[in-house]
Amino acid sequence: MAEAAGVSLSTASKAINGRGRISAATRRRILDSARELGFVASSGPGRQPVTSVGVLAADLESRFSLPILDGLEDGLSSFSSFVHLCNARGDHLRERHQLNALLDRRVDGLIVVGGRTEERDPVGEALPVPVVYVHSRSRDPQDTSLVVDDAHGGRLQVEHLATLGRTRVAHISGRPHHRVAADRKTGVARGAKELGIDLVIELSDGPRTALWGRSAMQRILADHDVDAVVCDSDAIALGVIDQLRRASVRVPEDVAVVGYEDFGPLVWNSDPTITSIDMKLETLGREAARQLHAAVAGRGLEPGVRAMPCELVPRGSTTPGL
Amino acid sequence: MAEAAGVSLSTASKAINGRGRISAATRRRILDSARELGFVASSGPGRQPVTSVGVLAADLESRFSLPILDGLEDGLSSFSSFVHLCNARGDHLRERHQLNALLDRRVDGLIVVGGRTEERDPVGEALPVPVVYVHSRSRDPQDTSLVVDDAHGGRLQVEHLATLGRTRVAHISGRPHHRVAADRKTGVARGAKELGIDLVIELSDGPRTALWGRSAMQRILADHDVDAVVCDSDAIALGVIDQLRRASVRVPEDVAVVGYEDFGPLVWNSDPTITSIDMKLETLGREAARQLHAAVAGRGLEPGVRAMPCELVPRGSTTPGL
Repeated sequence: MAEAAGVSLSTASKAINGRGRISAATRRRILDSARELGFVASSGPGRQPVTSVGVLAADLESRFSLPILDGLEDGLSSFSSFVHLCNARGDHLRERHQLNALLDRRVDGLIVVGGRTEERDPVGEALPVPVVYVHSRSRDPQDTSLVVDDAHGGRLQVEHLATLGRTRVAHISGRPHHRVAADRKTGVARGAKELGIDLVIELSDGPRTALWGRSAMQRILADHDVDAVVCDSDAIALGVIDQLRRASVRVPEDVAVVGYEDFGPLVWNSDPTITSIDMKLETLGREAARQLHAAVAGRGLEPGVRAMPCELVPRGSTTPGL
Repeated sequence: MAEAAGVSLSTASKAINGRGRISAATRRRILDSARELGFVASSGPGRQPVTSVGVLAADLESRFSLPILDGLEDGLSSFSSFVHLCNARGDHLRERHQLNALLDRRVDGLIVVGGRTEERDPVGEALPVPVVYVHSRSRDPQDTSLVVDDAHGGRLQVEHLATLGRTRVAHISGRPHHRVAADRKTGVARGAKELGIDLVIELSDGPRTALWGRSAMQRILADHDVDAVVCDSDAIALGVIDQLRRASVRVPEDVAVVGYEDFGPLVWNSDPTITSIDMKLETLGREAARQLHAAVAGRGLEPGVRAMPCELVPRGSTTPGL
């Protein structure tokens, strides 16, 4: 930042803290750079007050938690908020204990991060601070929840195949009692109908693993003639691609494959690499930080569930040469 | 916890907060359960004081950060410490700003989490609170650093192959200027020498990807007769297994393959599943919490680098049927 403003670190520090003798122009330049870089003065008259936010993670082990946390931390720090991190490890009593401890410490607001896309009970009732739920929505419609729009993600999968001229599609979906699988399935089915794509077969009785992708693809190849496969996860797509190669079917020339999650270690290590749906979890975290910050500043929270859009990332499994 | 102690939640809550009328025996039973479950009373006379710890993550995007953070949070919360999370995003100035903000907030100690196994500059000089570095060691030998013992991990890879009677091993190692690759290589080479294993060929000029694993394995198969391959990552192992199957070589019957990292999405989605080295990053985080807690309590920190052991997890790529 000091570098960006063309001054020494100690000058930058003086400008931010409002101490020391520096010209008004220098000070303005430094503060502009600071703002651009997401730094905000931490104290002093006329500055944004420092707030503290409790982050209650339901399950840090979930790989979905990391990008959300990353976005949250980035968003909150740019609002000069301190992040108190707690991890309930899926334990209801532990979460209640942590909630009480956070309230004892007088946090200004709470963000509740779910490890998965399901509903959850409200973290507490009549809490004295604003709360934003991320990823797992609260069952209480008066709460504010930010979730991934999985119906949109499903729609993007078939839209992409339509632009590539594919018309006979197999869908290896998730188990239908999971909300996330149901939402994606809705998106795929509606999109296919509108775009004139024939959903030749849907298999929904397996887990989200490469092993299931392999055996599902084996079943599909035995009975059906398809030119594309929509998968409920990148792991399934990895198995599907593997099985297609074993059967000497070319990907993407003969059959295009679309995954879901845009999970780096899987999409990049597959051959070909996997076209996938980025759930924009970091954006979700950043947006939760923004909404909570506004609420702490007194601008209120809009009740209800807001579903945020996904993004398709094209790679080799649908586009030759990518 | 209330369940474990056989009382209602409100009774448990009273016991923990020291409020309400309950018998001394009940109270003791509840507090014992609470202690076992890692809950500690958050305030009140005669209790462990609440401390607050700043966690400076260099790079939350690194997937190695998540298990470390998970262990840290678990360890710190069991010591009744609050976790202030900051993410420097690889930016030195941002880190300095966060450090100052944490010190302004009077944290009792600091934990600096690196995203990778390299050295780093100390986070600051003559800091007023104890600091523990995790994963990335501090360049200052007077600092306390906890790191993965990668030489041990490398040794475990060849030890496992020796117990399986393999004697002609190819090593696809990391780039030698990385400390982590150099350490693992030392472990593999020493172990091989002591156990009578012939390191037929070593390839160290590629990245840690499945793509490199495939092309490295192609080169090895063209010129060498090996019965096992030691890989510097699970992604490399995934590519190696893939390439072996394309060449109709059976894994593990003809060639056994060992990965490194024990990264779930890769080891479980490979066919066969990948035997790998668990770097015990959660344990690393938990141990850092323990050491910092002791230091905050006045028991001091031992200077220097402490390397923590790894663990081999056997799976299908070395053991048929697993």
